[in-house]
Amino acid sequence: MKTQLDCYSCLVRQALSASRFAGMDDEGQRAVMNRALFELQNLNGSSTPPETVNKVYAAIAEVTGGVDLFREVKAHSTREALHLYPELKKVIKKAENRFETAVRLAIAGNIIDFAASETYDLKSSVRRALEQPLTENAVPALKEELDKAGWVLYIADNAGETVFDRLLIEEICPSKRVVYVVRGGAILNDATIEDAFAAGIEHVAEIKTTGYRGLGVIFKHSSPEFLKLWDEAPVIIAKGMANYETLSDQGRRVFFLLQVKCAPIGQDIGLPAGSLVVRRGASPF
Amino acid sequence: MKTQLDCYSCLVRQALSASRFAGMDDEGQRAVMNRALFELQNLNGSSTPPETVNKVYAAIAEVTGGVDLFREVKAHSTREALHLYPELKKVIKKAENRFETAVRLAIAGNIIDFAASETYDLKSSVRRALEQPLTENAVPALKEELDKAGWVLYIADNAGETVFDRLLIEEICPSKRVVYVVRGGAILNDATIEDAFAAGIEHVAEIKTTGYRGLGVIFKHSSPEFLKLWDEAPVIIAKGMANYETLSDQGRRVFFLLQVKCAPIGQDIGLPAGSLVVRRGASPF
Repeated sequence: MKTQLDCYSCLVRQALSASRFAGMDDEGQRAVMNRALFELQNLNGSSTPPETVNKVYAAIAEVTGGVDLFREVKAHSTREALHLYPELKKVIKKAENRFETAVRLAIAGNIIDFAASETYDLKSSVRRALEQPLTENAVPALKEELDKAGWVLYIADNAGETVFDRLLIEEICPSKRVVYVVRGGAILNDATIEDAFAAGIEHVAEIKTTGYRGLGVIFKHSSPEFLKLWDEAPVIIAKGMANYETLSDQGRRVFFLLQVKCAPIGQDIGLPAGSLVVRRGASPF
Repeated sequence: MKTQLDCYSCLVRQALSASRFAGMDDEGQRAVMNRALFELQNLNGSSTPPETVNKVYAAIAEVTGGVDLFREVKAHSTREALHLYPELKKVIKKAENRFETAVRLAIAGNIIDFAASETYDLKSSVRRALEQPLTENAVPALKEELDKAGWVLYIADNAGETVFDRLLIEEICPSKRVVYVVRGGAILNDATIEDAFAAGIEHVAEIKTTGYRGLGVIFKHSSPEFLKLWDEAPVIIAKGMANYETLSDQGRRVFFLLQVKCAPIGQDIGLPAGSLVVRRGASPF
């Protein structure tokens, strides 16, 4: 999904929020904002929103030395989700359609997103995901593709959401091999290897990374190891907005599980903000 | 009030909204957005938010030929307010404190503001202004200054709000001369001479302009006639956010009547968004 003009004000807001989260002083915040303005002025036509966010965070990392700003926030999100895990496991066990319920919960976990909003209500998101109709429901198609596939590439989004991913992965493994891909370095509250381990993902999947520090999946920055996985994967689950934004034109193998948390993505998907979505990727042709 | 870093994303949003309101195509919108980004990158330290908005609208006017984009919107706002006028006049007549009630209604009318939001609920704003405590209440000081003054300079904000201004002016005149200042040309839904006449202001005040097409009162752009009025005015009433933003450090003669509709102004005033304010200007020293 190309950066929309409607994304600009949000990207500017995120730059300020990030610089403040990094504890930068007024001058530092102004420098980060000017970097964001510069990047927006110099966007090329096919640039996606995560690419701009990545550049802004890279500029912040130059100043902060690249510490994981969201380390505590992510650890807290993971603990909060792990606390819910036993109860959610019961919900799945009692469900009429275990797989769809696990998919719904994986989408519920997508509310943990500091890019869209600094606050969220996880329990209410769980309730909503279990009750609200999926605005777009490619669950049967996803199930069918998984049944045929030898393994699945699962591209993670945020820390804490990882625990909800684990619930879904536990419905897929051990009959299928799952490769769980996190970001190659700390950015926002996105899951890294450390966060995947904190959620216990190592018990249910192989953990790999995109090979770079940044949101989404941007092939030109990805490691050869990731690109090989990408090329070979028979079916791909991609969580959240940044993965949608960077992969929405990557074909029918990809299934996006996300909550629509902003208007431009809603417009791109063709669904209102607040929608819970299982969307099968479009053909690039 | 200097442009805050928090203003940037809002100013970017306003630029997009304005370019769309002007019916510009995607390329035109992009050009306006780039202009806004450029202006924000090149702000000088003392620049106020209205100065940036003015530059963005000037860029739009270069393309649209400077038509009054909000002509219909403003006419509608004025008709809507005139429709309420007889009822509001009765409210003032029955009020225990006529002057304060008229001040409150003048503040109620300040909800009509297409910069802050494209929608508003006028009747609910009236109810709120009559019931909600004034978060800051310089009404007694304003009354005292008016009683001493030979005349008053009244700086208008938006069309439609003009009708609410008229209610307050009718409590001041005919014992005092009132000079009512509107914008020198069409910008956003701010009142121009035409809008002042549509509200019947000519029956209760002399109508003048700032002498330039733009938000707020920016002295370097103002006409000699306005500057003379400004210099000589014993007391000044300034309506709304843009006038506050450009005049907040212009001394104790100025009384600001406004609704706080955004966080940065709330922060500058020291009151939360949603506050109804009668604020006496600070000394510049």
